[in-house]
Amino acid sequence: MKKLINDPKNVVDEAARGIEAAHGDLVDVFYDPIYIVRKGAPVQGKVALVSGGGSGHEPLHGGFVGFGMLDAAVPGPVFTSPTPDPIVAATKAVDGGAGVLHIVKNYTGDVLNFETAADLASADDIEVRSVIINDDVAVKDSLYTAGRRGVAGTVLVEKIAGASAERLDDLETVTRIAQKVNDQTRSMGVALTPCVVPHAGEPSFTLADDEIEIGIGIHGEPGRERIKLEPADAIVDRLLGPILEDLPFASGDKVLLFVNGMGGTPQIELYIVFRRAAEVLKEKGVEVTRSLVGNFVTSLEMQGASITVLKLDDELTELWDAPVQTAALRWGR
Amino acid sequence: MKKLINDPKNVVDEAARGIEAAHGDLVDVFYDPIYIVRKGAPVQGKVALVSGGGSGHEPLHGGFVGFGMLDAAVPGPVFTSPTPDPIVAATKAVDGGAGVLHIVKNYTGDVLNFETAADLASADDIEVRSVIINDDVAVKDSLYTAGRRGVAGTVLVEKIAGASAERLDDLETVTRIAQKVNDQTRSMGVALTPCVVPHAGEPSFTLADDEIEIGIGIHGEPGRERIKLEPADAIVDRLLGPILEDLPFASGDKVLLFVNGMGGTPQIELYIVFRRAAEVLKEKGVEVTRSLVGNFVTSLEMQGASITVLKLDDELTELWDAPVQTAALRWGR
Repeated sequence: MKKLINDPKNVVDEAARGIEAAHGDLVDVFYDPIYIVRKGAPVQGKVALVSGGGSGHEPLHGGFVGFGMLDAAVPGPVFTSPTPDPIVAATKAVDGGAGVLHIVKNYTGDVLNFETAADLASADDIEVRSVIINDDVAVKDSLYTAGRRGVAGTVLVEKIAGASAERLDDLETVTRIAQKVNDQTRSMGVALTPCVVPHAGEPSFTLADDEIEIGIGIHGEPGRERIKLEPADAIVDRLLGPILEDLPFASGDKVLLFVNGMGGTPQIELYIVFRRAAEVLKEKGVEVTRSLVGNFVTSLEMQGASITVLKLDDELTELWDAPVQTAALRWGR
Repeated sequence: MKKLINDPKNVVDEAARGIEAAHGDLVDVFYDPIYIVRKGAPVQGKVALVSGGGSGHEPLHGGFVGFGMLDAAVPGPVFTSPTPDPIVAATKAVDGGAGVLHIVKNYTGDVLNFETAADLASADDIEVRSVIINDDVAVKDSLYTAGRRGVAGTVLVEKIAGASAERLDDLETVTRIAQKVNDQTRSMGVALTPCVVPHAGEPSFTLADDEIEIGIGIHGEPGRERIKLEPADAIVDRLLGPILEDLPFASGDKVLLFVNGMGGTPQIELYIVFRRAAEVLKEKGVEVTRSLVGNFVTSLEMQGASITVLKLDDELTELWDAPVQTAALRWGR
């Protein structure tokens, strides 16, 4: 295992200290238990957004804390859900009296621990709603998950619901919008290589030198099939097919196309993927009106990518375009 | 070789088409030869900034074309300088009558081809100045280079000189500021793994399972020494020592600290590196007032990182903070 780390058991703590050192203008970091809070939180009268989950998917979620997006992020150990305690602490820290929305990726541990945290916060008179993200069309009922997994679409939910909260929409509206983004988003990924969880020290799965995994999860969970390496265009077609059929997307739709790197894939390859995905959408009469390309929901150093398509309407487009100021996503203001 | 590509010889062309598809609101892409131009260029009366070099370092340079940064980027083949032709074409395309500044990383091929291009453009009555970037303190006279190499500091020059041009400073001022940023910037990197150039198909160098290379260049050129893998903090100290001695940086200095990923390193590790670098600077009385963390000047899928420190003053800080709107760096507006 070759990593720029010190002791594997300090990885999350030390990274949080790095986030604090680098982005002290945007966030405050609390330790023991660790959670990351938007500078100046709570914002009185604003619905607060809290997300979290296992670490190793950076910049998700800590990189998305700030104006126009999350109010708090709760990083668990690498690929392991945070316990209810830091989720409750984060929820209390950001509640500005207008309620809190939990954005939860659909993994059994995350769902359970966020549910417990919501109950505990409610007992303290904080109104909590939850939206479960399950945008991955690859498989149902995988390792870690009952139902579909939550993957890269989470970023789109956090951005768009964050903009809704920032303009002081009420809890019901912010929740409705988060749910709508999830309902209109579909994703699927591919792995070329596995990744190594620091405290494990070994790859969580293996792939032969000429093998790739279609439909991989963000923790290296099994996907739909293992196949021989193919040209990028053929791989894109394999990912995009199930995505487009599932909603289904139709000619005339306007979409946000998001090509996400799994952490170890060069950006030049992500653009090759984007090119083909945009080409296929164009052939089908689907118009790409917004785009996002880069490493946003990663699996440590895994090589691979995922494609996410969000069906847009005027409401979602306006919220996507609204200013955001976080470590990993920022524009406007 | 496992890559999300089609034919290795089409990598740069297809990636450029991806950039066009994803960022058509920010840039126009020209083909045969390939260069990327800011939407709406030329901007009359504004000094234009042109940079370029071998591909494989994305988002450098194409990801930095837009408001407040570059007017054009010229990507050569992977790890190979662009020829003078596209540099001339890009220079002419963006000249708004106030002159053009070439920002050139110090590699023999880049320097030569930009020089030839500048001569050709001058023959067409375009006033061209050049600044050579050579921020890497690791080695002198390496493979590809006479003198010091230009590495991650290039981003800082492009951002800050770009802001100077955007506020309509004249060519002499923009050139002075670019030169000043280069003169006050020092960098050094480490590689944990090599990378594979697509048309080569094999790693350009090898490292044993427990070996790392201190002072690596962005094309995998040899650095200062190969050592056994160490804890991140020890590696950071090895990189930061020569950086701080070289300018030298002194107690009371304010700096921008930039931790750059080489492409294949998880962001969680970059923050661990940032944490230690910030700690060391604090011990020395050097104050980190601005920061940047992420994959900005990469070497394909190489695992590793570089540390860059820029000594700031009020002029540079104001220009760093100015709005920028590019694919890879954006804030404000």
